Amino acid sequence: MSRFWSYIVHTLTPYVPGEQPQLAHPIKLNTNENPYPPSPRVLDAIRRELGEDGASLRKYPDPPSRALREAVAKHHGIRVEQVFAGNGSDEVLAHAFQALLKHDEPIRFPDITYSFYPIYAQLYGVEYKTIPLNAYFAIDVDDYRAPNGGILLPNPNAPTGHALPLSEIEVLLKQNPDVPVIIDEAYVDFGAESAVNLIDAYPNLLVVQTTSKARSLAGMRVGFAFGNTELIEALTRVKDSFNSYPLDRLAQAAATASYEDQKSFEESCAKVIATRNTLTTQLEALGFEVVPSAANFVFAKHPKHDAATLGTTLKQQEIFVRHFKLPRIDQHLRISVGTNDECDVLIAALKKLIA
Amino acid sequence: MSRFWSYIVHTLTPYVPGEQPQLAHPIKLNTNENPYPPSPRVLDAIRRELGEDGASLRKYPDPPSRALREAVAKHHGIRVEQVFAGNGSDEVLAHAFQALLKHDEPIRFPDITYSFYPIYAQLYGVEYKTIPLNAYFAIDVDDYRAPNGGILLPNPNAPTGHALPLSEIEVLLKQNPDVPVIIDEAYVDFGAESAVNLIDAYPNLLVVQTTSKARSLAGMRVGFAFGNTELIEALTRVKDSFNSYPLDRLAQAAATASYEDQKSFEESCAKVIATRNTLTTQLEALGFEVVPSAANFVFAKHPKHDAATLGTTLKQQEIFVRHFKLPRIDQHLRISVGTNDECDVLIAALKKLIA
Repeated sequence: MSRFWSYIVHTLTPYVPGEQPQLAHPIKLNTNENPYPPSPRVLDAIRRELGEDGASLRKYPDPPSRALREAVAKHHGIRVEQVFAGNGSDEVLAHAFQALLKHDEPIRFPDITYSFYPIYAQLYGVEYKTIPLNAYFAIDVDDYRAPNGGILLPNPNAPTGHALPLSEIEVLLKQNPDVPVIIDEAYVDFGAESAVNLIDAYPNLLVVQTTSKARSLAGMRVGFAFGNTELIEALTRVKDSFNSYPLDRLAQAAATASYEDQKSFEESCAKVIATRNTLTTQLEALGFEVVPSAANFVFAKHPKHDAATLGTTLKQQEIFVRHFKLPRIDQHLRISVGTNDECDVLIAALKKLIA
Repeated sequence: MSRFWSYIVHTLTPYVPGEQPQLAHPIKLNTNENPYPPSPRVLDAIRRELGEDGASLRKYPDPPSRALREAVAKHHGIRVEQVFAGNGSDEVLAHAFQALLKHDEPIRFPDITYSFYPIYAQLYGVEYKTIPLNAYFAIDVDDYRAPNGGILLPNPNAPTGHALPLSEIEVLLKQNPDVPVIIDEAYVDFGAESAVNLIDAYPNLLVVQTTSKARSLAGMRVGFAFGNTELIEALTRVKDSFNSYPLDRLAQAAATASYEDQKSFEESCAKVIATRNTLTTQLEALGFEVVPSAANFVFAKHPKHDAATLGTTLKQQEIFVRHFKLPRIDQHLRISVGTNDECDVLIAALKKLIA
């Protein structure tokens, strides 16, 4: 508290990201990072940008990240004007709250979802109503029919991993043609269907993606929004009133190169999916109930073991998973899919704890 | 215009940064970049972070940029809790507008100053009043005595280059103890006195700095605020409600290394200052009136030649300087200090134009 603070600061309850332990070799399954390195082309592109003496770093980056947006547009078969690039999809979502979601009616998002959404809403004074997931932790799009100022859903949802088929996203879009509908596809590449190709048909659709998960670039902070040019213009106007150069030279080079290597991307996703399936089977064999996941994490609950206690005990063994002290999910753990070896260590530790 | 836009988007007039020409070898004196590369240690640090295969990039960066803030705190002889790090000083300033400058009374900043200020104010609904520079394009701190919600000044000012002595900054702080006073020191290392060491004495003082100018890291987007822990907490609360990870791994590594090499930093500043003094003399010999500059640019006006025309003609020769089509300064050009060779090319071109 301080008399120098703007009023809004007193009202904020900031987001708390998953712990980044400062240990030599933690088993880090708590922030949904990809266990595999990015494409080798990413490294080449960064080295090329650095050159012999890093002289290019003295110059500002391209403000609209044009080359990057062109590469991503090409990848998705859309136009560069339909692509917005930001400093991680968190920044893109923040701009979307400010630029597209402040209307007379409250916006709607699920009660169990990415826990940053209510925080953005608070920061920008966006009113919202949360819609309960059903008993199976799934979104029922019919629950989003009532008048609203906008809709925001992750697909797959986080932290549940549950995915909606594209046909359901289209039902949602048809039911809500007059408000922005934002689909946050941070985890889409691990088994869900992207709505990117619907942006021409639905001028109210904004799709948000990231390079942090499937593209192994969490450390470089690059995210996108795809949509009708009017929606992209709203984000651009906010961005250009906030920070002209949100993506540095190396981040632009790294992300551009990632979209030029489809093979390494597909291989990395396939490996994560295979490990997820094994991990799910192993957790179920230990008595866990696991939400069917289309993401790079699983959301699991043991009927006889307290989730917080399990999480704390694992942490003592330098195995990090994520526990949310929130209604309805405080008996669940969200476990990121690591390498096969990392998941084996986790399963061995859980076996002992549960025995 | 779109029915999907939040109301605020319709009201925005975004910032337009200096042109980033896509030419092989432009003489680029329009965005105040440093003509010299960053410290060799920056390159080493980036390469170390990348390692053999770039595997660290798959992991999120440290959310509070702790190691970087420690290096900068050590450099300035202050505590890490007195340092905030953001994605360029533009992001830091944006957060400061939202976190510290929205009060009942309008804030005050100069009529001729960094043209992003009124844009931030618009984005966050911060009321402001501009205070005219005096006839010599200097700030008179006595003009900031009236009741206000906060004060924001660059020192040296941009685009004039004029610097206030620290004693005047202290007068300003003493005259305004009850509101935040923000000193934007983007250019301070080229000849002005920093107010960083006043933060213990004045709990309302926030000093903003950047690595983009004197540290040759415009391409990496790293800026700071220094102040009382209460002020830093306000910025941190906004940052953590906006984007947990604004600085990527390579940006953190690069900026940290820059603060570990005082020698290369001082040499680079000394070269820029020497060139600025030569450039000023040469421009004056051509009949230009040059505002005394403590920055890495000069602000110059020719009594007989229209500034916009000069700028356009130089651009045709691939020499880029900045012209602002704004009241009081539309007959000035802001010319960044390049290498000696770049400034020689500029002077030769101007000689022909003015002859």
